[in-house]
Amino acid sequence: MSEIIKVAVDAMGGDNAPTEIVKGTVEAVQTRKDIKVFLVGQEDVVKKELEKYTYEKEQIEVVHAEDVIETAEPPVNAIRKKKQSSIVIGMNMVKKQEADAFVSAGSSGAILVGGQVLVGRIKGVERPPLAPLIPTEKGVALLIDCGANVDARASHLVQFAQMGSIYMENVIGVKKPKVAILNIGAEEEKGNQLVKETFPLLKECEDINFIGSIEAREIPHGGADVIVTEAFAGNIVLKLYEGVADTLLRKVKEGLMSTLRSKIGALLIKPALKKTLKAFDASQYGGAPLLGLNGLVVKTHGSAKAGDIRNSIIQCVTFRQQKINEKIKDHIGKHEEKQDQ
Amino acid sequence: MSEIIKVAVDAMGGDNAPTEIVKGTVEAVQTRKDIKVFLVGQEDVVKKELEKYTYEKEQIEVVHAEDVIETAEPPVNAIRKKKQSSIVIGMNMVKKQEADAFVSAGSSGAILVGGQVLVGRIKGVERPPLAPLIPTEKGVALLIDCGANVDARASHLVQFAQMGSIYMENVIGVKKPKVAILNIGAEEEKGNQLVKETFPLLKECEDINFIGSIEAREIPHGGADVIVTEAFAGNIVLKLYEGVADTLLRKVKEGLMSTLRSKIGALLIKPALKKTLKAFDASQYGGAPLLGLNGLVVKTHGSAKAGDIRNSIIQCVTFRQQKINEKIKDHIGKHEEKQDQ
Repeated sequence: MSEIIKVAVDAMGGDNAPTEIVKGTVEAVQTRKDIKVFLVGQEDVVKKELEKYTYEKEQIEVVHAEDVIETAEPPVNAIRKKKQSSIVIGMNMVKKQEADAFVSAGSSGAILVGGQVLVGRIKGVERPPLAPLIPTEKGVALLIDCGANVDARASHLVQFAQMGSIYMENVIGVKKPKVAILNIGAEEEKGNQLVKETFPLLKECEDINFIGSIEAREIPHGGADVIVTEAFAGNIVLKLYEGVADTLLRKVKEGLMSTLRSKIGALLIKPALKKTLKAFDASQYGGAPLLGLNGLVVKTHGSAKAGDIRNSIIQCVTFRQQKINEKIKDHIGKHEEKQDQ
Repeated sequence: MSEIIKVAVDAMGGDNAPTEIVKGTVEAVQTRKDIKVFLVGQEDVVKKELEKYTYEKEQIEVVHAEDVIETAEPPVNAIRKKKQSSIVIGMNMVKKQEADAFVSAGSSGAILVGGQVLVGRIKGVERPPLAPLIPTEKGVALLIDCGANVDARASHLVQFAQMGSIYMENVIGVKKPKVAILNIGAEEEKGNQLVKETFPLLKECEDINFIGSIEAREIPHGGADVIVTEAFAGNIVLKLYEGVADTLLRKVKEGLMSTLRSKIGALLIKPALKKTLKAFDASQYGGAPLLGLNGLVVKTHGSAKAGDIRNSIIQCVTFRQQKINEKIKDHIGKHEEKQDQ
């Protein structure tokens, strides 16, 4: 039998905890036999939720965590003081290698801080980027970094490109992923100071397939597989993607419900429309990994439902089986040595 | 009779020049009698286009410009060397006050450089921002800056907020426009270095209605009337807005055309859908003004059609009648004096 992948899941994080988190966990272990999940959270609450389901008992274990870190809490303080929170306990399990991965829909800030402070960076990795998959016409693209490191430096962006490339190739299965830097024009001389510094470094980087700049307009069209940027711009892309899609689809629905004629039409188009738009739904691809840590930390959307949690847990299996962290170590290490010469 | 507003229009700029530019110009003068347009471009070409239409001859005058600045040309060079181009001639007309405004769908770079070098800044204005209107659920919002000044400083952003506020209040008619700074979280301590420096300055600014940070997700929902940002992030917002909307609407259409059933449904929903989505179409609001110059320069989309050109020309009338530049001078002047005390 293949190796069992151990995933710690934050049962208390996100808007729909613990109900949807527990549901997603059960779905994950029902889907795959090679997963063991540690549900970290308030034992009585979590166990009560678990009672609703039938599943292989050995595949889920509840790990008690008294505290919960709220989204509004200052992250550094929360990680330092709430030792008994689900985030701190889950991350410590990764650190002690009791779990291969930690999945949470909780406070982004606490997860980013905890990842660095508790799990720790792979030697040579300067900054761990948060890298969500975003939907495009052609499939998905990895947006790296989108929240972890504002005011990043050029050398950080080069590592993001390398780590993102490894992830897309091995977890998502895109051969020689096209890596582009987010810019405000296609030409090399365009951009702000950071982009101008980073561009030539990416051009020199032999272990990635760098295709140059990408304008934001081309992201949804699938112009690149890995989109490299610092966290401020990356976060804007991620949030605006959601905002525009959300607003437009609401407008479409409003239009459909506005007249009797359109209501009848709406009934007829519903199945076809649902199918096409599903391809543009990010949640089926799981959460965003925080790359470059000694173990895997996955941040899912605060409003994550069972399906998101299930997919995020399953994603951890591929990540582990494809030995992503070993590959990151090899590449970043190689690059470091080269720079030292 | 009211004052005649004189607008120089670049007949050679953009993907659809001169056909759509000339058509839009004719539509503008047919709509309003208080406009005179100078169509700047290759005389024979422009005149041939004009022959297609009936209009009041005194309202359109062709000004010959031998050269055309191409989009790919390095802007600084182009402005310096192509003295006989439509952009240089049109901008010089504004400088010499032969025209109140210049409208172009041509090279963004050349328009930004030309605006600063040829038309020149209002005294006290540190950087002139490009400020397009973007559609929201509640109407429109002004995105300032979205292309002119990458790596801007906090003092620039404060002026953007002031100029944007004046524009929204007086040209678009929004009372006490809500001004927000684009950020990656709602809390004051969030953001990159630039945002953290700018935030307290905006809070102190008495002549604007500052409401704090806005996340990109809230922009399409209409969370603010004036969105202040430096040009790199602003450009990303603008381009991604187009990209996501374009892709999603294409996906919706694909869905509608995918089955016989959905095709029948599509016929029924078309009128209602068209009406709802029209409210989310940016082009009806004209082009983006480059604010803070000694005269008005308006940049329209490179793919501008007649309707965009018509609206951009008409926008110049409101700008002039509402004495926007006089108001900018008053406010920026007042602020400068205060700082000197």
